[in-house]
Amino acid sequence: MVFTKFPSKLLEDAVGAIGSLPGIGSRSAMRLALHLLRQPAENVHHFTGAINALRDEVKYCRNCMMISDGDVCSICSDKSRDSKTICVVESVRDVMSIEDTGQYHGLYHVLGGIISPINGTGPSDLTVDRLIGRVEALASQVNDPREAEVIMALSGDVEGETTAFYIYRKLAPFGVKVSSLARGLGFGDDLEYADGLTLGRSIVNRQEFKP
Amino acid sequence: MVFTKFPSKLLEDAVGAIGSLPGIGSRSAMRLALHLLRQPAENVHHFTGAINALRDEVKYCRNCMMISDGDVCSICSDKSRDSKTICVVESVRDVMSIEDTGQYHGLYHVLGGIISPINGTGPSDLTVDRLIGRVEALASQVNDPREAEVIMALSGDVEGETTAFYIYRKLAPFGVKVSSLARGLGFGDDLEYADGLTLGRSIVNRQEFKP
Repeated sequence: MVFTKFPSKLLEDAVGAIGSLPGIGSRSAMRLALHLLRQPAENVHHFTGAINALRDEVKYCRNCMMISDGDVCSICSDKSRDSKTICVVESVRDVMSIEDTGQYHGLYHVLGGIISPINGTGPSDLTVDRLIGRVEALASQVNDPREAEVIMALSGDVEGETTAFYIYRKLAPFGVKVSSLARGLGFGDDLEYADGLTLGRSIVNRQEFKP
Repeated sequence: MVFTKFPSKLLEDAVGAIGSLPGIGSRSAMRLALHLLRQPAENVHHFTGAINALRDEVKYCRNCMMISDGDVCSICSDKSRDSKTICVVESVRDVMSIEDTGQYHGLYHVLGGIISPINGTGPSDLTVDRLIGRVEALASQVNDPREAEVIMALSGDVEGETTAFYIYRKLAPFGVKVSSLARGLGFGDDLEYADGLTLGRSIVNRQEFKP
């Protein structure tokens, strides 16, 4: 039920604010507002304080643009990681997803979006220039530029491919290795239900069987 | 995916706070936190401010215990409403649901819960005493106590029935009319799919056909 009359302006404002979040409808917003109203004041202040602190105090790593509590993030400042490999991702969440796999030990570069003419996002809205600067510096530090690698970990749609291609062209002069995520059937995927494009690519890019 | 490592304590705290809301899992909490991070700071402050204001400044009507911006709510202070009829509900949301039907023009009384031995909620945890005081005052103001009516608009489960019966016993000495919501099939309900208890009651409590 969508309520049309509110007994209190304060409740109406809070429901409006909560309902402005993506994926939260007016029913859920009302339920959450009444839930918060039933909590001790200190819990509510802790809730709003944590959100304000995130927005006001969070920093972005000056190196890779990842969310960080300091000027340099914990990944960039970890000396045990391979500083010759940079994994280019769209967002903070992608870094967290890849980190959680435990399979990657290099550094990252967060673009902060993806090139999308439809949404009006061009290369200058992203951190592409900063990435080029990083790769240029990296290429000058190694003996052979092929020791350095940039991994494109962007989504497999047209915008992801466009962004990867744009970056690839910009990085070509430095001679570093550029790779992209393997595309193919997921582990456990049923051949019958795979989409044709993925199945087609996974045949073209078949890998030698290593038992 | 549930993230195990957070790049920032601030992000972890905010995701934890958002994820503590009922019905919001860790995935949604992360999505909402990153959404809030992308918003202008003033929007985020407006969001948290509206929630803090609700929790800190909202009042409860001294008459009916409804949420209110003042000492007396807009319903109790509306002189056009029938002050001889009090509708007893469990929560603020019930008042809003009934108000939205546009079918009721009396006053309310918000119990703030329901008698539930399992949850340890007894009559003293609710605003029952205050209701009794209101009904006593009302009964003394009218010429005939049967002019006053208390409508039990509680849920149809055991706890709702228990609460209604408890209140009914307490109000009996004042001689006011006590009624409860009609129970039966909903409009548009299919007989075939009605539960037996509801169908049985709707036969016992059948109403004379008024075309």
